[in-house]
Amino acid sequence: MSYQTINFNKKFALFNEQWQPRVVAEMNDYQFKIVKLEGDFVWHDHKNTDETFIVLEGVLRIDFRDGKVHIAAGEMFVVPKGVEHKPHAEHEVKLLLIEPRGVPNTGHEGGDRTAENDVWI
Amino acid sequence: MSYQTINFNKKFALFNEQWQPRVVAEMNDYQFKIVKLEGDFVWHDHKNTDETFIVLEGVLRIDFRDGKVHIAAGEMFVVPKGVEHKPHAEHEVKLLLIEPRGVPNTGHEGGDRTAENDVWI
Repeated sequence: MSYQTINFNKKFALFNEQWQPRVVAEMNDYQFKIVKLEGDFVWHDHKNTDETFIVLEGVLRIDFRDGKVHIAAGEMFVVPKGVEHKPHAEHEVKLLLIEPRGVPNTGHEGGDRTAENDVWI
Repeated sequence: MSYQTINFNKKFALFNEQWQPRVVAEMNDYQFKIVKLEGDFVWHDHKNTDETFIVLEGVLRIDFRDGKVHIAAGEMFVVPKGVEHKPHAEHEVKLLLIEPRGVPNTGHEGGDRTAENDVWI
């Protein structure tokens, strides 16, 4: 059988849209999504799940109501469920997101920043 | 509050033992483990879960009964549950493993290559 790896750089080369997560793989009922971010996002949380950020390029800032964190390439961070957060990227960031299938990018906030879910690339 | 990222290189600098996964983070009931590999592992499978490999440095080969895959730095691969596999690293590989808490490295095979589970770093 032919087995294929997922190459992050090759996948990132396939799209330019920012804030639009693309699913690249699944593990059980979890999805791996790559996304390009730049600028400010909206405050939101995910009531039922933690959310993992692995930065592949650039530096992502995540603001919390009581602090913030800077996640650089080669670093990861897990936002605990129910914790309000707001991602911000001064320059474009390339990111791997890991979370259960079906989690919307804006959590329960909705609004015009909500991306289509479950889009594969 | 003070929020801390997990820096893979800093974590890898803390140990030299090969084939001994170290937990660096949890997301819900899943664990992120870093591990250094070199040489040959044993054939095994995980009956109840997929297993994710993200290579951070080097090239990992995974043999299957009917094929193989080479996973280079910047690539990932998900081994489906129940699929027998045998990792091999010609030179040392630094790897991020993602799987549910409690999964032993040798699956159901046991034996002297079985590492202690749930060791944090």
